[in-house]
Amino acid sequence: MTKSIDFYFDFISPYSYLSLERLKLLKKNNDIVINYKPILLGGLHKLGGITPPAFNDRKLKNMKNDCELIAKKNNIKFYWNSKFPINSLYIMRGYLVIKDKVKENYFDNCFNAYWRDNIDISNENNLEMILEKTGIIKNEFFEKINQIEIKNKLKEFTDKAFEKDVFGAPTFIVNNKIFWGQDRLEYAIDELNS
Amino acid sequence: MTKSIDFYFDFISPYSYLSLERLKLLKKNNDIVINYKPILLGGLHKLGGITPPAFNDRKLKNMKNDCELIAKKNNIKFYWNSKFPINSLYIMRGYLVIKDKVKENYFDNCFNAYWRDNIDISNENNLEMILEKTGIIKNEFFEKINQIEIKNKLKEFTDKAFEKDVFGAPTFIVNNKIFWGQDRLEYAIDELNS
Repeated sequence: MTKSIDFYFDFISPYSYLSLERLKLLKKNNDIVINYKPILLGGLHKLGGITPPAFNDRKLKNMKNDCELIAKKNNIKFYWNSKFPINSLYIMRGYLVIKDKVKENYFDNCFNAYWRDNIDISNENNLEMILEKTGIIKNEFFEKINQIEIKNKLKEFTDKAFEKDVFGAPTFIVNNKIFWGQDRLEYAIDELNS
Repeated sequence: MTKSIDFYFDFISPYSYLSLERLKLLKKNNDIVINYKPILLGGLHKLGGITPPAFNDRKLKNMKNDCELIAKKNNIKFYWNSKFPINSLYIMRGYLVIKDKVKENYFDNCFNAYWRDNIDISNENNLEMILEKTGIIKNEFFEKINQIEIKNKLKEFTDKAFEKDVFGAPTFIVNNKIFWGQDRLEYAIDELNS
């Protein structure tokens, strides 16, 4: 039987980015399917009545240090984005309008731009650069992300995550068990192997 | 040169309890001094404008699951206290009025009672039982924890922690670097050894 892990993410989440390399290793295992679950983290926090750490001075400072430390310990190329936090609405909607292999590349290019290359991906010019690099036709892209169906789809995905008790990113779900935070990916993998 | 690690704790913090076994191993290393830093976690959260996870349904549920998982993975005897959260004011003040070896025993007995034996240590009868077990004269204890000097001392300790950017428990400080959460104790130890 194929085993699967649900991965809830938002491009603005540094800890989601920091879990990608470990997830890529998992992906090489053909018996394991990773279900990518895009959510709007800001919306999810709102639904859950949660003040994100980005809005608390001490927590923000700690998060930056902590992410840099995790990256260093795990040899992950990482740079704390000088424009953190941003509104990730358009780039997350964008993930919903692209398909197949291009979707994978868009995923990698967005995460790398924001958390490796210090690019503000909420800026339209920068986003256009990423689209070009990914081979996405920009007019189509911008038209689609403003369609009501796509707006509703991201909202739906976020609502569904909330209904499953997801309240942050990254969240991993294996066998209906929730694992929150990149620190718990190993526990999620243990659950996969159990 | 003797190396030292500051350990900020409150008896109501499950993650503080879950880091104790690892800290005990460190303590056996004579070159390392652990500075115990009692704080009132509720007061610290208030100072930092932080809503504790205990006051958010989803975060509370996750915290319980997460602690149970950490305990299981690390073979730590743990039971999620059915009276969580409690007001830890008196038991934390209590830590400040006791000295030497008895202080160590009080520390262990409070943590074990609350996070291993499901005892509500904010209840006066239960606290008396712990005092008896620890060999502390209860009349003296209750007189002292109501003295203005002790009230102020706990407030001072909490204020000082806040000034150092501490915002949660457990927090470890090594070489003026802050490590928050039991997940980061290993990083704090790496810093000790660096």
